[in-house]
Amino acid sequence: MSESQTIKGASDRLLLVVDLAGTFLFGLEGARTAIGGNLDFLGVMVLAFATALGGGIIRDLLIGDHPPASLRDWRYATTAFLAGAFVFFLYRVQQGVPASLIVVLDAAGLSLFAVAENQKVLAFQINPLIAALLGTITGVGGGTIRDMLLAQVPVVLRAKVYATAAFFGSVVMVIARRIGLRPTVAAVIGGVACFALRMLAVHYHWNLPKAT
Amino acid sequence: MSESQTIKGASDRLLLVVDLAGTFLFGLEGARTAIGGNLDFLGVMVLAFATALGGGIIRDLLIGDHPPASLRDWRYATTAFLAGAFVFFLYRVQQGVPASLIVVLDAAGLSLFAVAENQKVLAFQINPLIAALLGTITGVGGGTIRDMLLAQVPVVLRAKVYATAAFFGSVVMVIARRIGLRPTVAAVIGGVACFALRMLAVHYHWNLPKAT
Amino acid sequence: MSESQTIKGASDRLLLVVDLAGTFLFGLEGARTAIGGNLDFLGVMVLAFATALGGGIIRDLLIGDHPPASLRDWRYATTAFLAGAFVFFLYRVQQGVPASLIVVLDAAGLSLFAVAENQKVLAFQINPLIAALLGTITGVGGGTIRDMLLAQVPVVLRAKVYATAAFFGSVVMVIARRIGLRPTVAAVIGGVACFALRMLAVHYHWNLPKAT
Repeated sequence: MSESQTIKGASDRLLLVVDLAGTFLFGLEGARTAIGGNLDFLGVMVLAFATALGGGIIRDLLIGDHPPASLRDWRYATTAFLAGAFVFFLYRVQQGVPASLIVVLDAAGLSLFAVAENQKVLAFQINPLIAALLGTITGVGGGTIRDMLLAQVPVVLRAKVYATAAFFGSVVMVIARRIGLRPTVAAVIGGVACFALRMLAVHYHWNLPKAT
Repeated sequence: MSESQTIKGASDRLLLVVDLAGTFLFGLEGARTAIGGNLDFLGVMVLAFATALGGGIIRDLLIGDHPPASLRDWRYATTAFLAGAFVFFLYRVQQGVPASLIVVLDAAGLSLFAVAENQKVLAFQINPLIAALLGTITGVGGGTIRDMLLAQVPVVLRAKVYATAAFFGSVVMVIARRIGLRPTVAAVIGGVACFALRMLAVHYHWNLPKAT
Repeated sequence: MSESQTIKGASDRLLLVVDLAGTFLFGLEGARTAIGGNLDFLGVMVLAFATALGGGIIRDLLIGDHPPASLRDWRYATTAFLAGAFVFFLYRVQQGVPASLIVVLDAAGLSLFAVAENQKVLAFQINPLIAALLGTITGVGGGTIRDMLLAQVPVVLRAKVYATAAFFGSVVMVIARRIGLRPTVAAVIGGVACFALRMLAVHYHWNLPKAT
C-alpha cells in the first residue's frame, strides 16, 4: 500500500468516526426533545433517527448520492437508535447532565456535521457557495425535521447564531481547501471555526439583527 | 413463456393490485382528514394524494428510484384522486361508515404498504435493518406528511403501536425472505403480522412505554 | 450555428431569465413572511431561499435531476439571497408597496414557475397528468415549505384558486405541446392561463367548494 493510500484510509476512518460521533450527539438531542414532547418509546427512536440522520439524508438526496450513506451503512442507524435508547432507559441519569454541557455537545455535533459533509460535497465538483450551503443544511437539517415533526418553528431559525455558525464553518473549510490545504486539515479548521463562533455567540448572547 | 416467468408476471400483477388497494385506502383517509380540517376541494385532493403516495415517494427518493413509481405510472395518482373525489362527493354517505371499520381499513392499508415496499427495497441489496426501516417509512410516511401539512404532530408518533406494527411486519417479511421463502409468500406473512399486531394493539389498548 | 440551434439558445436564455425572475419574486415573498414571523436576518435568508427554490428542488428530486438546477447554478441561490437582503435592508421602503401589487407579483411568480418547469419535465418523457402535477408542485412547493417551517397550514391549501391556477396553467401548456406548438409558445400560453385564472379568482372572490 502506498503512502497516499494509507493517508486516504486513515482519513476515511477519521471521517467515519467523526460522523458517528456527530450522529450519536444529535441522536441524544432528538431523543431528549421527544421525551420533552411527551412521546413514547417509538417517538423517541424516530426523533433520535430523524435528528441524527436527517441533515445528511437531505444532503445526499440533493447531490444525488443514492441510497444515502446513512442508509447504506447500518452503523449510522444503529448509532442513532443507541443514542435514543440511552436517553430513554437512562432518562433520570442523563437529566443530571448540566444544560451548559448539552449546549457544548450540540455545538460539537454541529461542527462535526459541517466538516464531514463538505469533504463529500466538494468531491461532487459543486460551486463553493452551494457547497457551503449544503454544509449548513447538513448541520441544521436534522434539527429542522425534528422541530417540524413536533409542529414547531425550527429552533435553528431562532437560536443564537446557530445555522450561521454552520455556514461560517463550511465557508472556512471551502476556502481552506481552495488554498490547497489537505482535506483533513481543512475539515479540522472549519470545524473549529464553527464551534468557536457558536460558543462565542452563546457566551456573549450574540443575536443576528432583525428588520425594523 | 416459462413457468418462472408466469409466476413473476402473476407476482407483479398481485403487487400492483395490492399497491393500488393500499393507495385507495390511504387516499380515503387523507381526504377525510382534509375535510375534518375544513379544507376545500383542492385541499382534499392534495391530502388524498400526499397521504396515499407520500410514503412510497419518500422510499423511492431514498433508494434512488427516479422518478418514483407512483409518478411514473398514472394509475397511482388517478387512484388517489378517485379516493379523494369519492370522499368529497359522497361525504354524507361515507360518514355512515363506522369508526371501527375505518381503523380496520387503515391497518389493512398500512400492512399492504409495508408488504409492497420490501419486495422492491430488497431488490436494491440493502441491509436488512435498513430494509425494515424503509418498510416502516413507506407505511407511515404518507400519514406523516398529511399531518405536517396540517401543522400537527403526526398521529404515527402518538397512535397505539402504529409505526411499530409496520416495523414488525417489515422485519417478519425480511426474515421470511432470508430463510428462503418466495417473495409473495414472505409478503403475505409480513402483511398479516403487521395487521395482527395493529389490531391486537387497538383491541387491548396497548401502548408503548414512556420514559419517566 | 443552424437556425434551430439559434432558436434553442434563445429559448434557453429566455427560460433562465423567466426562472430567475420567478425566483426573485418568490424570494421577496418568503422574506416578507419571515419578517412577519419575527425571524432574524438568517431566518429571512432561509425563508427567501426555501420559498424561491423549494418548488424547483422538489421537482428535480422527483424527476431525478441531480443536483437540482438551483444548486448546480449559483445564480439561483444568489438571486434568492438578493431578494432576501432587499426586503431586509429596505424593509420600510418595501412596506409601501400596495398589497394588490404583491398579489399580482405573486401570481406572476406562480405562472413563471409553472411554465419553466413543464419544459423540463416533458423532456423526461413523463405522463401528461404527472407533468401537470409536477408543474403544480413547482409552483406551490416553495410556499408550502415556507409555511411548514413556520408551523402553519400552507396558504396554498387555503388560498383562493391558487394551486388550482398552477395546475390549470400546467394542463394548458401540456396540451399546447401535445398539439404541436413550439415549447416557448406553449409556455407563454400556459403562463398566461395560470395568471389569468388566479387574477380572476382574486378579483371575483372565487372559492372552491367544500364538502358538506
